[in-house]
Amino acid sequence: MSKVNLTEKLGQFSDLFSPKIVATYNDNDIQVVKVAGHFVWHKHDDTDDFFLVLKGKLTIQLRDRNIDLGPGELYVVPRGVEHCPKADVETHVLLIEPQGTLNTGDAGGAMTAKKEPI
Amino acid sequence: MSKVNLTEKLGQFSDLFSPKIVATYNDNDIQVVKVAGHFVWHKHDDTDDFFLVLKGKLTIQLRDRNIDLGPGELYVVPRGVEHCPKADVETHVLLIEPQGTLNTGDAGGAMTAKKEPI
Repeated sequence: MSKVNLTEKLGQFSDLFSPKIVATYNDNDIQVVKVAGHFVWHKHDDTDDFFLVLKGKLTIQLRDRNIDLGPGELYVVPRGVEHCPKADVETHVLLIEPQGTLNTGDAGGAMTAKKEPI
Repeated sequence: MSKVNLTEKLGQFSDLFSPKIVATYNDNDIQVVKVAGHFVWHKHDDTDDFFLVLKGKLTIQLRDRNIDLGPGELYVVPRGVEHCPKADVETHVLLIEPQGTLNTGDAGGAMTAKKEPI
């Protein structure tokens, strides 16, 4: 593989809530995603969910509290825990999930995205 | 878990080549490390090795080329590939490795660090 410049990758697309795969680590996809607005409540029964904010501000809503993340802040949602990301401004995030993980987890629906390499 | 502010974590220690665990993702340790100077040549036969530079400049020497990483750039060293990180200035890196992975891989020796949570 070549090195990955995250800013360069983020400059190559503009669609929201559509993760792009920038690298692979063992059986995990390293992804970047742009988000704005409200995602869907969902959980992943078989995996934790890694979020690192690169730009903007992300709120990971949990059922009992919110996790507010700015640039350089990360949070790992434990497997099985319902969560719903939202952002008031366009926010750029580094995501790590096992290959084949649906972005919408158990919820499915219209926001389910096909993750493509970029 | 609470959210992790990487700058805050990096402000809590000054030792070099001594990764600190800031979070867990599935069976992996999410770590921050400060590096300056030359590490040791090594490889991990059972895992890829994830590097994301947060500050400074990291050169991951491979046997056939160098990978130069600045802030916001990442590289995944494939399993089994010999590598030796080095940095001319103090450099801060986010590392991901499976729990129990030795920082010095197959090389062992004096630079082998006990990874502690921070």
